[in-house]
Amino acid sequence: MTDTNERPAVTVIGMGNMGSAVARAYLERGYRTTVWNRTADKAEALADAGAAVASTAAKAVAASPVTVLSLLDNTAVEDVLESVGDAASGRTLVSLTSGSPAQARANEAWATEHGAAYVDGKVMGDPPDVGTSRISLAFSGDRDAFEAVEPVLTELGSLTYHGPDSGFAAVEFNAQVAMGYEFLIGYLHTLSLVEAEGMDLEAFTDRLAGSLNGYAGLLRMMAGAIKSGTYGPDLGSLDVQAALMDDLIGHRESTGVETVRMREVKSLMDRRIAQGHGDQGFSSMFELLRLRP
Amino acid sequence: MTDTNERPAVTVIGMGNMGSAVARAYLERGYRTTVWNRTADKAEALADAGAAVASTAAKAVAASPVTVLSLLDNTAVEDVLESVGDAASGRTLVSLTSGSPAQARANEAWATEHGAAYVDGKVMGDPPDVGTSRISLAFSGDRDAFEAVEPVLTELGSLTYHGPDSGFAAVEFNAQVAMGYEFLIGYLHTLSLVEAEGMDLEAFTDRLAGSLNGYAGLLRMMAGAIKSGTYGPDLGSLDVQAALMDDLIGHRESTGVETVRMREVKSLMDRRIAQGHGDQGFSSMFELLRLRP
Repeated sequence: MTDTNERPAVTVIGMGNMGSAVARAYLERGYRTTVWNRTADKAEALADAGAAVASTAAKAVAASPVTVLSLLDNTAVEDVLESVGDAASGRTLVSLTSGSPAQARANEAWATEHGAAYVDGKVMGDPPDVGTSRISLAFSGDRDAFEAVEPVLTELGSLTYHGPDSGFAAVEFNAQVAMGYEFLIGYLHTLSLVEAEGMDLEAFTDRLAGSLNGYAGLLRMMAGAIKSGTYGPDLGSLDVQAALMDDLIGHRESTGVETVRMREVKSLMDRRIAQGHGDQGFSSMFELLRLRP
Repeated sequence: MTDTNERPAVTVIGMGNMGSAVARAYLERGYRTTVWNRTADKAEALADAGAAVASTAAKAVAASPVTVLSLLDNTAVEDVLESVGDAASGRTLVSLTSGSPAQARANEAWATEHGAAYVDGKVMGDPPDVGTSRISLAFSGDRDAFEAVEPVLTELGSLTYHGPDSGFAAVEFNAQVAMGYEFLIGYLHTLSLVEAEGMDLEAFTDRLAGSLNGYAGLLRMMAGAIKSGTYGPDLGSLDVQAALMDDLIGHRESTGVETVRMREVKSLMDRRIAQGHGDQGFSSMFELLRLRP
């Protein structure tokens, strides 16, 4: 790698914690790395590490076939794209910035208008883990564009590609994060009951952690039932589950912990039973939640 | 095992699906098994399989050192105990009936008054799996009583003992079941977003199922933080998480899926931030939920 011109080139725009970690990962792997930041001081630290600092975002994008944008939010991405303009032509832009599926699709439309390719990415993990398998990155957008830049993106962590709809990386990210919050808020609520009863929180958590694998098969069974629309009595019939739910609510009330979330589940069960589906299972309640029945 | 008197003896009261499966498991393992049911017809099927059918619950309890009660609900247990009365003296009663921690403690008090030992049990699993490791049973109550009957109970599945408070098996059961419902209702809500965005439900579920193990370490970290009261920025600071939560809510609104549950999380975050703890993590919200701060 003594000949500079044989080294792969990449541009990184945005020198926050994540963008700086991305630029450093490329420098460590021998990439000719060009950086740009709205305020120059943050870029200077990367110059010390061997990066070329561009004077404008347009020059930064022009310097490499691939540009990774890691900015505060998608408004910042829009500002940068506007300033880059036609300098994006023939380049591939990869945004690792948080934002909605609609924003990703709008970025792609801008890129297409300006003769550029666009790949949207969402990062799950922390800056110190960039460049290791502990960080996972979801990508979506034009398949050819993704495959062309995949060797460059692979340097950053563990990749998944979610298809040509550039919004899907954001859908995946938002759904996985929402699932995490659903699980963890449920955990905190459950712990309030465990603590109110005087049971050791850490011992309970150990048992719960040990049981997580058991959910994998259940989730797959439920997804299959929902896709086919054929709902067996997965966790037992809703008739039986509703009686159990009354017990759970009664227990919570007797200890003084809140019952709002269990009541929401019970009311969905009651609605489904009232529709004549008390013989079906938990997964059948999806019919009450889906937008497109 | 040709000498009848050398075979261990057990009584099973209640010949519903679970009680019948328990009695059959003991018969298969060579136990002298006595059964009783409120209506005699259900007990007759077990007589055909080799069980002795007692004419009253009191005689059934007197026939064996250990009696397992598997009834519809704890009211049925109370009715049986009343009819058994002093015939319980010197016996160990093990209830596998659903019910609250308070009911388990009341059963234990009844047993103590009548010179009997009491162990409460809660079954997680289905009747066809009784006698295999696929069924798990949570027990609590006097330790000596539990250890004395443990060899008999081990025949039924995988056991855990939760301590001398006879209510703890029910606490464990209710908390684990509640956690399951929290997780699964969150899954259905998340799927409504995934479906609204046109992403394949089964592929998403596969990825989610593959990520479950990652939660084990996070749960243990959170339990440690809650126990110590020292809340680091686990998933990021609440200030950063609240901004992310706004994005998630905005995305859901744009697709038309409900936002109630994410708004509950956001409002807890906002309350905690308003208390001056925006630098702490998700687990610190437990302080808003706990009864004993």
